[in-house]
Amino acid sequence: MTTTPATTDNPTTAASQVTVLGLGSMGSAIARTFVERGYRTTVWNRTASKCAPLVDVGATASATATEAVAASPLVVVCLLDSAAVDEVLASVDDVVEGKVLVNLTSGSPAQARTNERWASEHGAEYIDGKLMGDPPYVGTSNFTVLLSGSRSAFDAHESALRVLGGVGYHGEDAGLAAVEFMAQVAMGYEMLIGFLHVLKLVRAEGGDVTEFAERFVGSLAAYAPLLTGIAKAVASGEYPPDLGPLRVQAALMNDMIDHRESVGVEAMRMRQVKELMDRRIAGGNGEQGFSSLFELLEREG
Amino acid sequence: MTTTPATTDNPTTAASQVTVLGLGSMGSAIARTFVERGYRTTVWNRTASKCAPLVDVGATASATATEAVAASPLVVVCLLDSAAVDEVLASVDDVVEGKVLVNLTSGSPAQARTNERWASEHGAEYIDGKLMGDPPYVGTSNFTVLLSGSRSAFDAHESALRVLGGVGYHGEDAGLAAVEFMAQVAMGYEMLIGFLHVLKLVRAEGGDVTEFAERFVGSLAAYAPLLTGIAKAVASGEYPPDLGPLRVQAALMNDMIDHRESVGVEAMRMRQVKELMDRRIAGGNGEQGFSSLFELLEREG
Ligand SMILES: NC(=O)c1ccc[n+]([C@@H]2O[C@H](COP(=O)([O-])OP(=O)(O)OC[C@H]3O[C@@H](n4cnc5c(N)ncnc54)[C@H](OP(=O)(O)O)[C@@H]3O)[C@@H](O)[C@H]2O)c1
Ligand SMILES: NC(=O)c1ccc[n+]([C@@H]2O[C@H](COP(=O)([O-])OP(=O)(O)OC[C@H]3O[C@@H](n4cnc5c(N)ncnc54)[C@H](OP(=O)(O)O)[C@@H]3O)[C@@H](O)[C@H]2O)c1
Repeated sequence: MTTTPATTDNPTTAASQVTVLGLGSMGSAIARTFVERGYRTTVWNRTASKCAPLVDVGATASATATEAVAASPLVVVCLLDSAAVDEVLASVDDVVEGKVLVNLTSGSPAQARTNERWASEHGAEYIDGKLMGDPPYVGTSNFTVLLSGSRSAFDAHESALRVLGGVGYHGEDAGLAAVEFMAQVAMGYEMLIGFLHVLKLVRAEGGDVTEFAERFVGSLAAYAPLLTGIAKAVASGEYPPDLGPLRVQAALMNDMIDHRESVGVEAMRMRQVKELMDRRIAGGNGEQGFSSLFELLEREG
Repeated sequence: MTTTPATTDNPTTAASQVTVLGLGSMGSAIARTFVERGYRTTVWNRTASKCAPLVDVGATASATATEAVAASPLVVVCLLDSAAVDEVLASVDDVVEGKVLVNLTSGSPAQARTNERWASEHGAEYIDGKLMGDPPYVGTSNFTVLLSGSRSAFDAHESALRVLGGVGYHGEDAGLAAVEFMAQVAMGYEMLIGFLHVLKLVRAEGGDVTEFAERFVGSLAAYAPLLTGIAKAVASGEYPPDLGPLRVQAALMNDMIDHRESVGVEAMRMRQVKELMDRRIAGGNGEQGFSSLFELLEREG
């Protein structure tokens, strides 16, 4: 093994050595991608038979997780869930010192922070990652890795991590990748479940759902300034009449609720929005805009 | 008055004559825009004093709605609400024959269809319109008029209607402009109320709300193929595993609900989505994707 300083150009340096723990569908795609890009890749999986296809393409299989961790400075973990991560990390606690652990297993911000403390107590650096995309897209621009945790470890291994796809680094707090994941995914589901209900409304009223979708898609870009404006209002605590004054918007909500009820489409969100608007108006803030509803959310829960 | 055939190029032809009934903030902006573009504009308002600023710029004021309707082949109505429209239309029922009525007052699809029947019984053609934008934007590309109803009337007066802003014609059924309005506005509120809750989550976890907004805005375009794909699945009734198989997505919903509860952010939509997913999975459709939840919505309400 050479001991030249790590560079991304030379696939035989320390920075080109990676271990992957966990060879489920995602871990296998990750390990395969490292092998294909010339990384000296060591793999381990609880069920050893899953190592064979990776060994066939050039990876080295370790019999134990401990051996696998010892083999590389960079250790990528991709297991079923946080319970599996806890179990596997506990089994390698005497060899992680000086290593960089990159945990790409799904989990909460709190679990990421717990892992980070564990790593720090054991002399390892920790990066938490959340994956957006399916295994076949690993290594392409249609795969995104959200990362947070040790900045120095990220800087040292950024090029290896970029092998997996688009990479975003969200800060030193190891929980932030999971926060970003939860936030981005929630935004997606909020939009898409709203969209399904709206498609029902369009169809109930004799409209064409695919034509409606095309028009909505055509208007997506127009939401950009609105969304950034709302975030700025929330950040500053000063609320302009975005989307018009609340007292005008509240009347529109009533129309929409009535209409949805008349065609049998749920109005859950519209009712929630209306109730929040009414409370802001009653509090003397009827001239502020939509973003000001945030004040009520902040006081709840 | 000339009697040459209507063309859009000659501002002295019949097609260049328009009457506006209702001079609130919106009706006044509409009338002013017609005057500025060279239309011979007749105005009427219940409270006559509101005619003065329009007369100052070149409009002709009528003392009664009947006189105003008689003055032009195209009659644009923009009043407070449907009750006001009913009242004013009833007062002009003996002069509407042969006219084109374009009603831009807010209201439901059902109200539009009722107006259309009334017009047809009185020998008039009817176009319903819904306005997206504020009065200062009338006449600019930041103002949109959704229209539906008589196709022949739309074709004859399209150029006059385009004076007001971007124009979309949604079909012969007079209710379709209101359907489009309800659907587009609902999509906006669904996205924006979800966004406010997500901003709360981001902030509760120590993230920066304006930076998050910028990243989400950067990902907006990526929703286009997803949204059109979902609409196609709904239209065809064949549901590919969009966003992955439901059984995988349902596990993610649990994580998101747990996380939101742990930081005090409501999980209303996630719980609804999870419940719909569970029902599809129990029905043996766990390999289908998100779009298949539409099947359950269709059976409800
Ligand atoms: N697949 C996707 O589309 C996708 C997308 C985004 C994120 N992810 C995330 O990526 C992670 C891996 O997903 P996957 O699709 O690869 O899952 P998978 O195919 O089910 O593989 C699970 C892996 O975890 C291992 N494992 C489970 N419990 C263990 C334990 N107690 N000790 C040691 N190893 C254990 C399994 O080992 P055995 O082989 O011995 O069972 C296997 O290697 C998950 O957190 C998932 O949420 C997946
Ligand atoms: N303003 C906006 O930003 C906006 C945006 C999109 C859509 N719209 C829609 O545009 C329409 C007009 O809005 P606006 O802002 O112009 O409202 P507005 O300023 O309140 O004006 C209301 C108009 O309706 C008239 N009116 C009310 N009741 C009447 C009755 N019974 N008989 C005759 N006339 C009556 C009023 O006449 P008087 O002067 O005699 O009271 C006035 O001309 C509404 O449907 C609104 O929802 C407005």
